[in-house]
Amino acid sequence: MNLSNPVFIPGPTNMPEAIRKSIELPTVDHRRPSFKAEIERLNDDIKKVLKAEDADLFLFPATGTGGWEAAIANTLRAGDKILACRHGVFSNKWIEMCRGFGLDVQVIECDWRGPAQPALIQQALEADTKGEIRAVLATHNETATGVKSDLCAIRRAIDAANHDALFFVDGVSSIASMDFRMTEWGIDVAVTGSQKGFMLPAGVAIVAVRERALAASKTANLPKFFFDFGQMTTTIASGGYPYTPPTQLLAGLQLACDMLLEEGLEAVFDRHFYIAEGVRRAVKAWGMEICANSHCCESDTVTTVILPEGCDGAALTGHVYERYQMSFGVGLGQFAGKAFRIGHLGLLSESQMLCGLATIEMAMKDLDFPIELGSGVAAAQAWYCREMSLSQSAKEVA
Amino acid sequence: MNLSNPVFIPGPTNMPEAIRKSIELPTVDHRRPSFKAEIERLNDDIKKVLKAEDADLFLFPATGTGGWEAAIANTLRAGDKILACRHGVFSNKWIEMCRGFGLDVQVIECDWRGPAQPALIQQALEADTKGEIRAVLATHNETATGVKSDLCAIRRAIDAANHDALFFVDGVSSIASMDFRMTEWGIDVAVTGSQKGFMLPAGVAIVAVRERALAASKTANLPKFFFDFGQMTTTIASGGYPYTPPTQLLAGLQLACDMLLEEGLEAVFDRHFYIAEGVRRAVKAWGMEICANSHCCESDTVTTVILPEGCDGAALTGHVYERYQMSFGVGLGQFAGKAFRIGHLGLLSESQMLCGLATIEMAMKDLDFPIELGSGVAAAQAWYCREMSLSQSAKEVA
Amino acid sequence: MNLSNPVFIPGPTNMPEAIRKSIELPTVDHRRPSFKAEIERLNDDIKKVLKAEDADLFLFPATGTGGWEAAIANTLRAGDKILACRHGVFSNKWIEMCRGFGLDVQVIECDWRGPAQPALIQQALEADTKGEIRAVLATHNETATGVKSDLCAIRRAIDAANHDALFFVDGVSSIASMDFRMTEWGIDVAVTGSQKGFMLPAGVAIVAVRERALAASKTANLPKFFFDFGQMTTTIASGGYPYTPPTQLLAGLQLACDMLLEEGLEAVFDRHFYIAEGVRRAVKAWGMEICANSHCCESDTVTTVILPEGCDGAALTGHVYERYQMSFGVGLGQFAGKAFRIGHLGLLSESQMLCGLATIEMAMKDLDFPIELGSGVAAAQAWYCREMSLSQSAKEVA
Amino acid sequence: MNLSNPVFIPGPTNMPEAIRKSIELPTVDHRRPSFKAEIERLNDDIKKVLKAEDADLFLFPATGTGGWEAAIANTLRAGDKILACRHGVFSNKWIEMCRGFGLDVQVIECDWRGPAQPALIQQALEADTKGEIRAVLATHNETATGVKSDLCAIRRAIDAANHDALFFVDGVSSIASMDFRMTEWGIDVAVTGSQKGFMLPAGVAIVAVRERALAASKTANLPKFFFDFGQMTTTIASGGYPYTPPTQLLAGLQLACDMLLEEGLEAVFDRHFYIAEGVRRAVKAWGMEICANSHCCESDTVTTVILPEGCDGAALTGHVYERYQMSFGVGLGQFAGKAFRIGHLGLLSESQMLCGLATIEMAMKDLDFPIELGSGVAAAQAWYCREMSLSQSAKEVA
Repeated sequence: MNLSNPVFIPGPTNMPEAIRKSIELPTVDHRRPSFKAEIERLNDDIKKVLKAEDADLFLFPATGTGGWEAAIANTLRAGDKILACRHGVFSNKWIEMCRGFGLDVQVIECDWRGPAQPALIQQALEADTKGEIRAVLATHNETATGVKSDLCAIRRAIDAANHDALFFVDGVSSIASMDFRMTEWGIDVAVTGSQKGFMLPAGVAIVAVRERALAASKTANLPKFFFDFGQMTTTIASGGYPYTPPTQLLAGLQLACDMLLEEGLEAVFDRHFYIAEGVRRAVKAWGMEICANSHCCESDTVTTVILPEGCDGAALTGHVYERYQMSFGVGLGQFAGKAFRIGHLGLLSESQMLCGLATIEMAMKDLDFPIELGSGVAAAQAWYCREMSLSQSAKEVA
Repeated sequence: MNLSNPVFIPGPTNMPEAIRKSIELPTVDHRRPSFKAEIERLNDDIKKVLKAEDADLFLFPATGTGGWEAAIANTLRAGDKILACRHGVFSNKWIEMCRGFGLDVQVIECDWRGPAQPALIQQALEADTKGEIRAVLATHNETATGVKSDLCAIRRAIDAANHDALFFVDGVSSIASMDFRMTEWGIDVAVTGSQKGFMLPAGVAIVAVRERALAASKTANLPKFFFDFGQMTTTIASGGYPYTPPTQLLAGLQLACDMLLEEGLEAVFDRHFYIAEGVRRAVKAWGMEICANSHCCESDTVTTVILPEGCDGAALTGHVYERYQMSFGVGLGQFAGKAFRIGHLGLLSESQMLCGLATIEMAMKDLDFPIELGSGVAAAQAWYCREMSLSQSAKEVA
Repeated sequence: MNLSNPVFIPGPTNMPEAIRKSIELPTVDHRRPSFKAEIERLNDDIKKVLKAEDADLFLFPATGTGGWEAAIANTLRAGDKILACRHGVFSNKWIEMCRGFGLDVQVIECDWRGPAQPALIQQALEADTKGEIRAVLATHNETATGVKSDLCAIRRAIDAANHDALFFVDGVSSIASMDFRMTEWGIDVAVTGSQKGFMLPAGVAIVAVRERALAASKTANLPKFFFDFGQMTTTIASGGYPYTPPTQLLAGLQLACDMLLEEGLEAVFDRHFYIAEGVRRAVKAWGMEICANSHCCESDTVTTVILPEGCDGAALTGHVYERYQMSFGVGLGQFAGKAFRIGHLGLLSESQMLCGLATIEMAMKDLDFPIELGSGVAAAQAWYCREMSLSQSAKEVA
Repeated sequence: MNLSNPVFIPGPTNMPEAIRKSIELPTVDHRRPSFKAEIERLNDDIKKVLKAEDADLFLFPATGTGGWEAAIANTLRAGDKILACRHGVFSNKWIEMCRGFGLDVQVIECDWRGPAQPALIQQALEADTKGEIRAVLATHNETATGVKSDLCAIRRAIDAANHDALFFVDGVSSIASMDFRMTEWGIDVAVTGSQKGFMLPAGVAIVAVRERALAASKTANLPKFFFDFGQMTTTIASGGYPYTPPTQLLAGLQLACDMLLEEGLEAVFDRHFYIAEGVRRAVKAWGMEICANSHCCESDTVTTVILPEGCDGAALTGHVYERYQMSFGVGLGQFAGKAFRIGHLGLLSESQMLCGLATIEMAMKDLDFPIELGSGVAAAQAWYCREMSLSQSAKEVA
């Protein structure tokens, strides 16, 4: 595999040099006296990134999926009723997990090219006159479709229904890249992983939990051990960890927080918009469609490109990998074969983004897709040229 | 923290340079076409290390504890009866996990300075005339006490009782360092992690499962999703992975297997004995006791040293870390404060081992423990001098 | 500085991951017993790359300039007469060095947009009826202008003049990237450095010396110590080195040779042509001129682009660095301010090359240079699309 | 070769992790705008380490030997008369270099177990009534013998003789490890390298030059180009470098300065004394002699151990490398075969030092040298135990 070309998958992201170095650590003792203070500082900084100052934070040596499991297993009881929108493979995966845990999931089927529907959520909650729905699940950014849901609107929908369901959010591919406000939006549990906006390898599941969900965890009865909140809280409080912590990744996570907070979260979000918008202009210049069916739900971390009839997305990603040694995402679920995905989260220069666009153009040309070489590149260049560059701080650390 | 001194904790181990480099990888696409062949080769090689050619292998992005959970959650049913010996904090931890999952654990209390007792296991199984015991749990190497149990004898005990309980083994701190024969010893599920004999950071739980346990997994009903065997089997078979795999650690695991198999497993075990025996001679020269109460149960990966009356083990490990920036293990459970632990697994030269012994001697002297400086070092030197050196292949890669 | 974007300077080149790792070595003893065999193997492999099997090889811990000094100081006598073409700042630098050493340099002034002139060399040698000219200097690839000289033709010119002058070649920016045949072309001394075709940081001067030049070194009388051939030969023969060797870079040089020889030198040269031709097509699409005044002297390692009247090359390279954090070469000597240079040597994927072209287009647009965004990119894409890809071996190691 | 054991050669030293990381840099443009400010800051910091605020500093991509050549070639004229003490192979090497450059060296032969003799220097200068001696050369720390000369006394001797000879000092194995005061001691040129007290790989020659030597450089006439002060001064002033600079090592040198200055030079010197004194006590406990013939000339960076009659030093270093994969220095010159050397400069914990002592004891035992195992270790432990530990700052970065 080529190790010089950037990747354009929606995570794991390209790693900044400094991040790579931060995790390239010799073995250090996880029982060192400073561990407690280090983990507390890290938790505080991650909470700043999540705008979740009033949350408790749990870091498990697992992936985002493990974080979802932790969220469910610690707060719910067998048979609990859950409400979730299905509009992509990742929102569906969470639904399946809940069912695997014996939960009763009420699914709202939504258009896969659009976001979760607050109005339908409100309607379902209003219909739940007995208050049986224990939690509403939302996927902030559907990594499969590149569609962003409006969490604030969902919060308002829950409030409008005057329902006290907990609000659980999968922020795996949005947190640390797109605007996210846990406390302000009344999110009770938020989940993400190390390999997206934090620009690390996979290996840390990040779970932030606020007061009402913590209270629920006292009576939750689903079995868990590895992902147990209580055990984690107790051992951390005594300066330990329930098992061997992922020392290297925790060091990297601290650096990632330092970098993100120094750049400024708004600058980080602006940077993601800046890069993403170049991609969207390229797609339009190609004469193709973006999966997201309206401007306001376009993701700034991943763009799903709907291919013209007769163009095979899987063939494209296979060919571009084989011929140019570059990775893009395949279409998933309803879009399997019909689309491909361009990941553009983490620290990515406009030059690297153009590198990806120029390469996928060649691959499409090779396969006789209807594409004019350089057309998307030129559209993206025109955008990057005239816009403010990445914030200087971001450039320095790239 | 000092990054130049070796650590002497019983895992994570010191990492060979080559291993460190192998995991210092830029982001690569986990959906690359070669992934399936790579994971199959890795699984095959790990099975060679476990002498488990007829097992299925599961690699979870978690720690050994997660591996235990996977073992239980996939093969048992709520209320199942389990038999386990308790003789240290790690064997106890597994018992607690089982209870957390609603299993009915019958505990055989054993002396914490000795191994699991095959005779008592046999007795308990013979008493189980209804055949209710579904599984026997054994901790091959109690990391807390430095005591090795005789798995072959436990197998014989199960057979002698003519009982068809499954045989589950925690090999976290033995596998890849001490003699382990999954198939020959009739082990149904074996669990280990990346951060011990495989000399990597924590982050991969390794679970090997043989036919009867796989069969049991068809009817198991404990909830699981992240650790689900079925999902892992299906996605791996189709060239995927149920979530983002720990790419860097998998690359390192392959190199670790290459190194271990090239050196030869018997040579690896001999090397661990060679290093460990030097430590044991040092302890005796200090006039102190090794926790393990007989030669035949002494661990070759960790030595627990019982301190003389009035010597505080926690003060010792705290002081040696503070004053000499070197990490040793604390005493745990019954030995908290009364012992300390010397980890000596993974690739460790005799010179590095002497470095640790010389340093802990100074720390003991500083605290007025009854110790003659140089005494343990001299005893270890005398052993290392006259013995064959580490195998050349091991030295090359150190 | 941004560490994620590739550089497009004509050396040091972008480093392949494997090369970076090979030089990231802890301290090893340079007096280790195996050193002699290692340096001999390395010398042999470098000679294969230079097609100089009958040469002696000297590796100095210095840069290519130090290699030039070694070539002169070891083979010539104060007052010796030298013949050299001047057609760029690097050919001029060598002339200046010779004069600094008290040599009498006869300079043939050539067009800076063309190569050294074999006909004029022949004429000068024929005019030297007393045989006073001791050496002819040639710069294989003028890094300042992107012009390649025809060494074979110069050899024929020397032979046609029936002159026994030594033939010294600066191959700094050609060797290991472009066709070079030391023995076949009758080159007596060839010089290069580690930071070009060998893809390492600067720090090793490579000097290959054939029989006649070695003979001349017996009577040479210019002072030298650090760069002394004799001392190097003697200490190497005894398993040593005259001073501390650049251990890390020597390890990297061995890997670079392994990579180049495994890929095959012809494949390496083809790869450089493939990448370079894309650049040249982009330049033409921009409506600009390549400095090299004929196809046959175009360099495959660096392209000097003559800018339209009124466009400031220094402003361009300054702006592209400042705004897009990407490095290109400035125009030098006669082309200072009037040109800029695109380095494209070492392991560079077509995608990375397009990244550079897309970025410099934006920078030119920003400065209101007459450029159509995407035009050069499209021309290069069209070339890369239809041509055979980089050899697979090259891709694997990138 | 084993990459886990520390080395005990007198340079290159073991590298701290942070230093290793600092030089593990991707390619960056050496013509970047910030280069001038960076090199100026680096030069300033190196001058602080040399206590040479009024000197000019030159950094050549070479070794310390290249630095010596630069010192000579830039300040002297063919035939100039030089005064030097010979008391080891490195002081001798400088004498040979001077002769190679056509200088007339007056040699004062001194005991190889002692330092340069200020009284004899004074005598020779007083005898030079015509003032023909242009420079006095001194080797601050003879790396071959572990003998330190008194530079302050030599300065006083020159002054007492009322002679205006320049004062040149080889500080290769003393600077940044032992007390060195360029300005206060009236040193005109000082030379060192990157691979000793600065803890980097070899590859940078550091030459500090004060006013009188700079003045001399105006009229010096020895040929030079690569090592030319004038060219370096001019190009640096204009933001360039005369050739490709060793970018990675310069970054490392800056970090090394940061680390040394943060720890404090006096703390650095104390730390070297602390480690060295443990070694000396071990040697005495072995019943062997230290080469240095008086306490006041014992080096704190390298200890040369005179072996008992009949013990072969070369056999010892060969055996310890072969059997235990650990590097020590051989005896050199008069002590070839009769001694071995223990290098202990750079960042080395007391634990690492004990690792070396314990290992060499085993190697001596293996060869039937008269040694009691553990004896030297115990003596060193007793010293390290009761002394203050390394400064905390040093430990942090190790």
